[in-house]
Amino acid sequence: MTLLGAIEGGGTKFVCGIGTREGQILERSSFPTTTPEETMGRAFEFFANKGIHAIGIGTFGPIDGNLKSESYGCITNTPKPYWSGFNVVDFTKSHLDVPVGFDTDVNAAALGEASWGAAKGLGSCLYMTVGTGIGAGAFIEGRLIHGLTHPEMGHTIVRRHPNDTYEGNCPFHKDCLEGLASGPAIEDRWKMKAFDLEAAHFAWGLEAYYLAQALVNFILILSPEKIILGGGVMKQIQLYPLIQQQLNKLLKGYINHPALAEGNSNYIVQPALGDNAGLSGALALADRALQGYENNRL
Amino acid sequence: MTLLGAIEGGGTKFVCGIGTREGQILERSSFPTTTPEETMGRAFEFFANKGIHAIGIGTFGPIDGNLKSESYGCITNTPKPYWSGFNVVDFTKSHLDVPVGFDTDVNAAALGEASWGAAKGLGSCLYMTVGTGIGAGAFIEGRLIHGLTHPEMGHTIVRRHPNDTYEGNCPFHKDCLEGLASGPAIEDRWKMKAFDLEAAHFAWGLEAYYLAQALVNFILILSPEKIILGGGVMKQIQLYPLIQQQLNKLLKGYINHPALAEGNSNYIVQPALGDNAGLSGALALADRALQGYENNRL
Repeated sequence: MTLLGAIEGGGTKFVCGIGTREGQILERSSFPTTTPEETMGRAFEFFANKGIHAIGIGTFGPIDGNLKSESYGCITNTPKPYWSGFNVVDFTKSHLDVPVGFDTDVNAAALGEASWGAAKGLGSCLYMTVGTGIGAGAFIEGRLIHGLTHPEMGHTIVRRHPNDTYEGNCPFHKDCLEGLASGPAIEDRWKMKAFDLEAAHFAWGLEAYYLAQALVNFILILSPEKIILGGGVMKQIQLYPLIQQQLNKLLKGYINHPALAEGNSNYIVQPALGDNAGLSGALALADRALQGYENNRL
Repeated sequence: MTLLGAIEGGGTKFVCGIGTREGQILERSSFPTTTPEETMGRAFEFFANKGIHAIGIGTFGPIDGNLKSESYGCITNTPKPYWSGFNVVDFTKSHLDVPVGFDTDVNAAALGEASWGAAKGLGSCLYMTVGTGIGAGAFIEGRLIHGLTHPEMGHTIVRRHPNDTYEGNCPFHKDCLEGLASGPAIEDRWKMKAFDLEAAHFAWGLEAYYLAQALVNFILILSPEKIILGGGVMKQIQLYPLIQQQLNKLLKGYINHPALAEGNSNYIVQPALGDNAGLSGALALADRALQGYENNRL
């Protein structure tokens, strides 16, 4: 059996796993994110003598994922101490002699869901996480989107709700999507923990109002065949139908497709891989690296 | 020499051309768009006995460009009389025995600019036309985006300018991007022909305000390496620096890349192929069809 290694590199913890080319996770370990050398060192200990044939790494960003760039493989400008400029790929290659797949955590999650989850068999999907921050990865025409840098969909422009007086908490843009709809924005606006807000509270209608606007733009720009919403805020499952309603209200029948028909709850869905989307995605990156699709590019 | 056929199928006129695999257009002909049979018939007369090895067709939309669909090759729901449900690809194949490439006019233009124009050699670009309507095509990771249907970027959500009292003229959404910033919207708002509005008129600042918002979202979602703006409204070349300024104001340095540095006028550009972007794009579709990339998919 061909074994693959996977790292889901988050800002607070790292999750490492061993799995198969079919997406099965056989073993895992997690530990806090400290310095790059210490954190990656613990990962390499975990992978030592496990006989992995490739490794996939999905990390927090921003990253340099441009294969033609001299700093390919780096975490770029992050407020996280010690990590700015650290080259994850080079450091991994100097310790493990296997192909390395590398991408953002959300791109990895999109690839995981496309490979083995809610978008299995489809040529495109969008994965968005709504939690401490908002980020999204897109798998389009069978490939993950990179480009000039990589998508930063959490910071897109949305229209403010006329009754929303909260100024927004994005340090760059104040009231972009993330500044109005991330978990911390919800808590800052309502001055209470998000999970203490009742399911019928207007907070969730407002949240759906903002997320649906972002999804309208994602649909009009990317045309994904499935949208998967994960992250802590989306544990509030009353959000899914609220978002669907707002979406139909905004699109006004413009996109004539059964996926967007009223009452279709099969287009905007929960991650089929649950909390494994990220780690499974890293496994999918490893599989692509093994196929010679380094960084998912031929 | 391998000759290719190209059709730029617009709502008011069809342009046909013969060209080379290097993007050179050797001969062209144009005529009004009437019924599908008559219009396509004139195209087939033009191509008769020219010895073309493949043909590419970029048309007004919406289209069904999904190869797995039974109605692949059709113009779908269009207000244009006679064309709804007409299968352009099947009709072409029944008259010309060559591979047929087929896509939207804006996707074709994006491919044309990526093949031989402003984005030559890049792995990604966005082409947006601002004229009677607003539409955009995206070439990302070496492929044109399709998906659930195809992108409809002209209808994305933008924030209204606080001093803009014009309600918008989109029949679906009133004040989406197209409803606020298309040529007819400008003329309806200011009650005069757009080309009679002075270059220093606030109309152009407002236009840049809306277009820059759309571009911010396109950049954050697609991360294209080059943005090409064409169409009648963009003949107002004072718009380019105005859009650049608004863009920097909105992004607030969030994307750390030289392409988006203040004063860089080499990221948002005019079509290098000029008014040939559409026809050259159709030629590029023909070339891909010849390569067996039917509809640009492997």
